[in-house]
Amino acid sequence: MRNALISAFMLSSGVVLASSQALADEGQWQPYQMPSIADKLSEKGIDIPAKQLADLTQYPMNAVVGLGYCTASFVSPQGLVVTNHHCAYRAIQYNSKKEHNYIADGFLATSKIDEPTAGPNERLYITEAVTNVSEQVTRDLSQDPLVRYEEIQSNRKSLIKSCESDDNYRCSVRSFHSGLEYYLIKQLIIRDVRLVYAPPESAAAFGGDIDNYEYPRHSADFTFLRAYVGKDGKPAVFSQDNVPYQPKSHLKINIDGVKAGDGVFVAGYPGSTSRYRLTSELKFASDWLYPTFASRYQLRIDTIAMMGAADKGVKIKYAGTLAGMANRMKKYNGLLDGFKATDITGIKQAREDDFKQWLATDKTYQSYQTQLDNLENLLVKKRSNSQTRYYFENAQSSSLLGAANKLYRLSREKTKPDAEREEGYQERDMKMFKARLKRIDSSFDVSVDKALWLQDLEAYNAQDNRVAALDAMLIDNKQSVSLSEKLDGLYSLTSMTAQDKRLDWMDAKSEDFETSADPFIRLAVALFDTNMAQETDKKTLAGELSQARPDYMKAVIAYYKANDWPVYPDANGTLRITYGMVDGYQSRDALYKQPFTRLEGITAKHTGIEPFNAPTKLLKAIEEQRYGNHKVETVYQDPASWLCRLFSCLDKPKSFGSVPVNFLSSVDTTGGNSGSPVFNGKGELVGLNFDSTYEAITKDWFFNPTITRAVHVDFRYILWMMDEVDHADNLIQELDLVRN
Amino acid sequence: MRNALISAFMLSSGVVLASSQALADEGQWQPYQMPSIADKLSEKGIDIPAKQLADLTQYPMNAVVGLGYCTASFVSPQGLVVTNHHCAYRAIQYNSKKEHNYIADGFLATSKIDEPTAGPNERLYITEAVTNVSEQVTRDLSQDPLVRYEEIQSNRKSLIKSCESDDNYRCSVRSFHSGLEYYLIKQLIIRDVRLVYAPPESAAAFGGDIDNYEYPRHSADFTFLRAYVGKDGKPAVFSQDNVPYQPKSHLKINIDGVKAGDGVFVAGYPGSTSRYRLTSELKFASDWLYPTFASRYQLRIDTIAMMGAADKGVKIKYAGTLAGMANRMKKYNGLLDGFKATDITGIKQAREDDFKQWLATDKTYQSYQTQLDNLENLLVKKRSNSQTRYYFENAQSSSLLGAANKLYRLSREKTKPDAEREEGYQERDMKMFKARLKRIDSSFDVSVDKALWLQDLEAYNAQDNRVAALDAMLIDNKQSVSLSEKLDGLYSLTSMTAQDKRLDWMDAKSEDFETSADPFIRLAVALFDTNMAQETDKKTLAGELSQARPDYMKAVIAYYKANDWPVYPDANGTLRITYGMVDGYQSRDALYKQPFTRLEGITAKHTGIEPFNAPTKLLKAIEEQRYGNHKVETVYQDPASWLCRLFSCLDKPKSFGSVPVNFLSSVDTTGGNSGSPVFNGKGELVGLNFDSTYEAITKDWFFNPTITRAVHVDFRYILWMMDEVDHADNLIQELDLVRN
Repeated sequence: MRNALISAFMLSSGVVLASSQALADEGQWQPYQMPSIADKLSEKGIDIPAKQLADLTQYPMNAVVGLGYCTASFVSPQGLVVTNHHCAYRAIQYNSKKEHNYIADGFLATSKIDEPTAGPNERLYITEAVTNVSEQVTRDLSQDPLVRYEEIQSNRKSLIKSCESDDNYRCSVRSFHSGLEYYLIKQLIIRDVRLVYAPPESAAAFGGDIDNYEYPRHSADFTFLRAYVGKDGKPAVFSQDNVPYQPKSHLKINIDGVKAGDGVFVAGYPGSTSRYRLTSELKFASDWLYPTFASRYQLRIDTIAMMGAADKGVKIKYAGTLAGMANRMKKYNGLLDGFKATDITGIKQAREDDFKQWLATDKTYQSYQTQLDNLENLLVKKRSNSQTRYYFENAQSSSLLGAANKLYRLSREKTKPDAEREEGYQERDMKMFKARLKRIDSSFDVSVDKALWLQDLEAYNAQDNRVAALDAMLIDNKQSVSLSEKLDGLYSLTSMTAQDKRLDWMDAKSEDFETSADPFIRLAVALFDTNMAQETDKKTLAGELSQARPDYMKAVIAYYKANDWPVYPDANGTLRITYGMVDGYQSRDALYKQPFTRLEGITAKHTGIEPFNAPTKLLKAIEEQRYGNHKVETVYQDPASWLCRLFSCLDKPKSFGSVPVNFLSSVDTTGGNSGSPVFNGKGELVGLNFDSTYEAITKDWFFNPTITRAVHVDFRYILWMMDEVDHADNLIQELDLVRN
Repeated sequence: MRNALISAFMLSSGVVLASSQALADEGQWQPYQMPSIADKLSEKGIDIPAKQLADLTQYPMNAVVGLGYCTASFVSPQGLVVTNHHCAYRAIQYNSKKEHNYIADGFLATSKIDEPTAGPNERLYITEAVTNVSEQVTRDLSQDPLVRYEEIQSNRKSLIKSCESDDNYRCSVRSFHSGLEYYLIKQLIIRDVRLVYAPPESAAAFGGDIDNYEYPRHSADFTFLRAYVGKDGKPAVFSQDNVPYQPKSHLKINIDGVKAGDGVFVAGYPGSTSRYRLTSELKFASDWLYPTFASRYQLRIDTIAMMGAADKGVKIKYAGTLAGMANRMKKYNGLLDGFKATDITGIKQAREDDFKQWLATDKTYQSYQTQLDNLENLLVKKRSNSQTRYYFENAQSSSLLGAANKLYRLSREKTKPDAEREEGYQERDMKMFKARLKRIDSSFDVSVDKALWLQDLEAYNAQDNRVAALDAMLIDNKQSVSLSEKLDGLYSLTSMTAQDKRLDWMDAKSEDFETSADPFIRLAVALFDTNMAQETDKKTLAGELSQARPDYMKAVIAYYKANDWPVYPDANGTLRITYGMVDGYQSRDALYKQPFTRLEGITAKHTGIEPFNAPTKLLKAIEEQRYGNHKVETVYQDPASWLCRLFSCLDKPKSFGSVPVNFLSSVDTTGGNSGSPVFNGKGELVGLNFDSTYEAITKDWFFNPTITRAVHVDFRYILWMMDEVDHADNLIQELDLVRN
């Protein structure tokens, strides 16, 4: 089977995998698994004991921090934290005013007094314990799918509730291997986060959307924050009296960095991957889901851009939204291009065929063929439901309708005891609920909201799956009023555009909604039953899948183990470790991308026109060759490149003569790994993960070791900027700098 | 000084030249010079004796052929010739009809009977002798600049006349080192050229304008022609009775090709370079000439494209013109981008400053400072004249006016004895003169000719340098008729649009012109005196420069020799040899371009949409991996890359597993080298030169060894196409295939 996989891969990409060795970098490992791959870590020159990496109470894992959507790490005994600039963007934006635009100009607090709050909603999460609770969650579950679903939810919620008895902790129960296992994650919450040092966006996001997902790259994508706690050392909300948090440990930074061929590892919170999904699921995603999403997204992007061009207010309000959408659109395009470039479906199908053959002959798992067939049938249903619901769900895309839907739902959930409420509507969720209602204003404009919603309604209108409640409210048109005019009426009559009015609804009763004249509230009430019925359908299917998927995964894991392949769960937002090697890659025929970029590459790309508009002081330092101690005289030839794979090229220095800016490694990352510390083999910090390459976007489905590379900021570049460009001497002194 | 040069270069490009060794590939050598660089050839592994290369009567130089604008070579004892597809384009187009479109579909004659004529104007030129005639041309020249100019012309013409006493020869006297030396070139003319085998344009120009000047490249840019002669073995015009020409020798083709690091050399007819020009000349070119030309060109391209979009007839007629202009525009852009990327002016200035220092202290050449100052003064005048004349010359850009100008000039020249006539107007030129008058029709449309001319007239109108004769005819506008309407009148009244009418004027007398009512003829007569006065100015300046430049070159050559730098004359369309090494290059920071592309790169680029629309049969052969005997199992790592320059990476095989398509080498080429044979160290054919890389376009001014690469078709690809795709078995049998 390994041969089958490799030959399918050769055919489609034209690249020969020299040996199965090349597959070894794949894997987003749970820390507890590290001892099981100790040999592979040693092979890469990762000498820190695997057992140490498995222990979340020890260095370096106890210095790794979650931001909720990104990863960060402690780098000083005084709670200094480093992450990506794009992860701290909200904090920088929060502090930017007309008088001092920190986004444009960067920010440096030269003493702790000058460190402003990162904003009321910023949090740091430190994972202190991960406990296998599979038994507690899945014991004695009902055979009725909906009941089963509710039982699982209820078991999870009660585990969370008891874990959160100390309100300095946030807890969650996450499913692994599609429900085969469950883990309770206990995280300390730091509630007072402050902004310390951020470079200008023109350096941090040099190359902007154009360079996003691309390499060669030259980004200073880093920002320093600081964790503060109460005087008692316990987490506390922002207060002038708070003091810097003293983390259990902080990362050592190796100023000699890494070189091509060095083993590295990355710890962080990857969000989601689909590596174990069935071929039919990949096919659906590549043939329907992504193309459909992409075309809707492009339309929305074009609409917002057009309206922004005509109205500067709109442009400013939607700048963040548009940037996020552009990023996602590039991801969709990367996925679609990647599926075109490599026949991943064919590769997965070949593996699945081999799996089925194995299944037919394996004594223990022979009977699982039935479960597999059952799973495929459920997936047919799931796909059909997705397609059916797609247009109706989009038909509720107005931000105001979304808020109204949630508010009415809240009023209904509130009638239940807290523990029985739907997730997201419990007391523990109310702060975030409120924050979200407030945040609408920051990227909302009636004309844009309406234009986008109208497009979605028209798309709904053009298809066959009708929802009577929606048709009755908006579509049936006896008065020959156009849909657009009808929407104009809705927006003119609603008070949902006012933040205080939206917040007032948080305390309202269901009856208040049901008797309201606000057209968005009325619409939410009218659509409620349909939405709830669809949710019940979803839950029922989820209940069915909660039985079928774990069975399938059991067989798949057995099959992987029989083949001696790595088994790690798909990413699910929990703490993981991935290892690999500093390595370039063959991007296209005759085009090889080398693992390190250098300062002079910034000057070469600089045009003076955004997004290639590097700060003058940075360009000047490069021009004057003020490399300080950060210049690397020689690096080592790229021993892992396909040029060299078949023979040893190690330990042959070549001239580098500059400061490394960004570098590539073969670690296995995905969204959520932004800001993750990149460690050398001794567990010392050498970089920050911030992106991956365009060719590798399909890695969420299939890890292709020849082209999958993550892009990191070299810590030598960060130190160089601190030292030669921004003179952040106060911070450098806090850092724990070591050498080889 | 070498250090000064290198450090200037380091600053501007960020690339360190490891040693002066890297400069060694520069040079477009006259064959007779080869023994003087024998050591350098050996160093590169070029083992064929330098003395043999110097001898135009020996293999391989006696198999190298000129096409007038390209280079070709004999590859069989029966006169089979190979060159680039783009060099044979006219011949393929000439034979394409509605019923059989050889441009689109390709062409293969399976026997000699099926080989059609390449067209009445196609010629092959075989350089048989190159004689130093400096003494004859420059002896006893007058000190009066205009007289001096005329004497040089007269000396050249009489040398040519006696050389052409046998009309099977074309002779020319070319200036080397800006008039320091003159050589008489004697070329046998083959007048019957036939089309033998051409791939479809979609393979030959795969990637079209987008890939033009780019790499990685995947072009099958080759075509086979055949030379025919009369039964007596002497050159003859096309006749069914003619027989294949038996060349003195033909090239052996080495089917094992070359690998990275191998020495190669190229023989051909490079057109023009400006390597020894002064910094002031480069500055003028980069700051005024190219930007001015580029903006006019872009306007013309846009206009033709727009008019072509509106009128299919125009589109077809101007397709060739537009393609040529796009090519030239890309060259202008490449020049301008190149000047931005590397401070070539700074590098040249540093060298010039060092030269001046040397001059000040050198005993022999100290006095040349005066000549240098004199030359700079003449160049100031030259630049000023160029700028003054620029708009007036463009104001005569109508093809009809151009023809009228030439025809009236012809009538005036004819009053002189043939030997005294201006070059281009002598009896020997009349055939080409006539052909050019005819050829106007193939790319002429009144509306386009008028639109472009109008733009040029308006540009003339917008500036201050007035020409009274032109103003009187077209600009002074007493009748409030617009310029555009005035031109409409000219086109409606002229008979110059008719080919036969244009040809009739060849026999007319001056008086006929002067009394003609044809508005284009009248305009030509009216502008004649101004044009002649400007020509006299030019000749006078040329006469002055014919004294100043050789003096300057004498000093420069002495300075180069003192530094032990290579001295070779700028390209001037004469036969040259350049040597180098198969080598990739650092294209941008962290982006390395490898020296060989492979078949699978075609499939990866193929979109099905022109210009990435490879022929189905070719794609199929790749998909089925029908590599035949042409697959290369391993190649050698790129030992000359900057990755490896500081240490030995030679002789380490890596997997290639495909047929090489195109490859790079560091030879020194320019326009005119298209179709040039690329030889291995034994003098066996391994490829055809066809392009150079975008980064290297500035090489006409400055050869930057780290980025200057020529792009070649690998002969293994040609053989693979002949064998596996087009089954040109008859031709393969004619070839002289050898192995390592």
